[in-house]
Amino acid sequence: MGKKLFVEEFQGLDFSMKYGVEKTLFCGQSDFQSVDIVETKTFGKMLLNDGLVMVTERDEFVYHDMIAHVPLFTHPCPRKVLIIGGGDGGTAREVLRHDVVEKCVMVEIDAMVVEASRTHLPSMSCSLDHPKLELRIEDGIKYVEETDEVFDVVLVDSTDPIGPAAPLFGSAFYQNVYRCLAETGIVVAQGESSHYEKKSQEKLLSIVSEIFPVRALYNYHNLTYPGGMWSFALASKGPHPLKDFDSSKVSASRLNFRYYNEAVHWGAFALPSFQKDLVGGYLSP
Amino acid sequence: MGKKLFVEEFQGLDFSMKYGVEKTLFCGQSDFQSVDIVETKTFGKMLLNDGLVMVTERDEFVYHDMIAHVPLFTHPCPRKVLIIGGGDGGTAREVLRHDVVEKCVMVEIDAMVVEASRTHLPSMSCSLDHPKLELRIEDGIKYVEETDEVFDVVLVDSTDPIGPAAPLFGSAFYQNVYRCLAETGIVVAQGESSHYEKKSQEKLLSIVSEIFPVRALYNYHNLTYPGGMWSFALASKGPHPLKDFDSSKVSASRLNFRYYNEAVHWGAFALPSFQKDLVGGYLSP
Repeated sequence: MGKKLFVEEFQGLDFSMKYGVEKTLFCGQSDFQSVDIVETKTFGKMLLNDGLVMVTERDEFVYHDMIAHVPLFTHPCPRKVLIIGGGDGGTAREVLRHDVVEKCVMVEIDAMVVEASRTHLPSMSCSLDHPKLELRIEDGIKYVEETDEVFDVVLVDSTDPIGPAAPLFGSAFYQNVYRCLAETGIVVAQGESSHYEKKSQEKLLSIVSEIFPVRALYNYHNLTYPGGMWSFALASKGPHPLKDFDSSKVSASRLNFRYYNEAVHWGAFALPSFQKDLVGGYLSP
Repeated sequence: MGKKLFVEEFQGLDFSMKYGVEKTLFCGQSDFQSVDIVETKTFGKMLLNDGLVMVTERDEFVYHDMIAHVPLFTHPCPRKVLIIGGGDGGTAREVLRHDVVEKCVMVEIDAMVVEASRTHLPSMSCSLDHPKLELRIEDGIKYVEETDEVFDVVLVDSTDPIGPAAPLFGSAFYQNVYRCLAETGIVVAQGESSHYEKKSQEKLLSIVSEIFPVRALYNYHNLTYPGGMWSFALASKGPHPLKDFDSSKVSASRLNFRYYNEAVHWGAFALPSFQKDLVGGYLSP
């Protein structure tokens, strides 16, 4: 690589993606996971948890646009938003661009991710002191179990279903999310990959299909996730992401996004046939 | 990787994708490029030209569905099809599934790619002896310059614009493609990546925009191309891939595809904002 340092992420035993590293900026072990931030030459700064690439400065706009704006433009009036996870701050940053949002609660279990992002990833963590944001360093599982607050949109911005995030892919968690959601509430969750994590994806959709009347899956192109094609799962008590999507709200918002736009909203739900075969049975028409 | 052999493809100097190899099946040097076929554990057999991954058994359906079926379902009656390149045979295989196709001419410059694919990639090369196929081992550049044949659809199934494929990204080539196309003719070309090869993509679109009245770009998710999001460029003398797309023809064809379907046809043209900013100026409305 012409570099002395690199990070290499394995997907299984036989495939890896390797990034040349200019400098290690942060290297820690929290109670939950290892947290590393490195400066790469071609992807900017990169956050890794337990050795897996979470976000890079180069492509984080894709993930954060798609986790936030699809549900926020689907919901008729998303005043209160809950983020579970999302310690780097990118999801909160995008949520808070919507003027209609009055309050955003972000519940991140790992203070180290938040603090390291505040120091080294200012382009993502820049909204963590926003007056509409309530940042809580605690377990999101417990929070949805115990809170009396009611939300319009819940965003589950989690790592893979191993380690601290495993219960976020469970049925008890989604029953509590359902309880916390208002009548027209929507939840969107990091939904894994139909190529590489199809069992996790299928299990997640099977769980939400038993709880929510509306279920959909949508795809996005992430440079630094293996295979590029990753998905978000969307479930709701009523609003449908295509039937109830009023695309004129996007231009009326006067917001500009680097990835998301009206066409991308529609197009992301166009699932390739192999993916429909895999999970179509769990999705609502 | 737990393997003694691996192949590693670099995208620039600071990023690579690495695949564990079980066995090397073919290793040759033609007049044009190096040709390798290896057996990988998780992607099946893999063809590399000059060390770059061209196709793997695991994900070739994505590329071949999208290069062939988007134009063939856009064109009102694609009787005659020309393939430039496509030595592995996967594109011809998909073209020949359309009963309406009466003749398909495939012009591949490198006999070694064809012969190695015949021997080691039967799932792709299986249609190379199809009675409707005329396989010519010669230079596609010269072919479109000299032929008197007229085609409804031309598919440029090429490698990157370095080495033997470089002239396939040039203006003279596209002027000749225009000449070979019937009145409602469509050309689709491997269109590179808006993330990693944006200069090549922009140059290609700038060239076709000076020759063809209709120009569009569409995306697909390829597991083994860096970043996952790659594009095809479509240009035509008349038919528009969205305005003139009659989606009922897809179900009427009774063909089943692992990636392509009506929704994917629409969705593939939904370009993310950064991509529209990059190349939107070259595309027709």
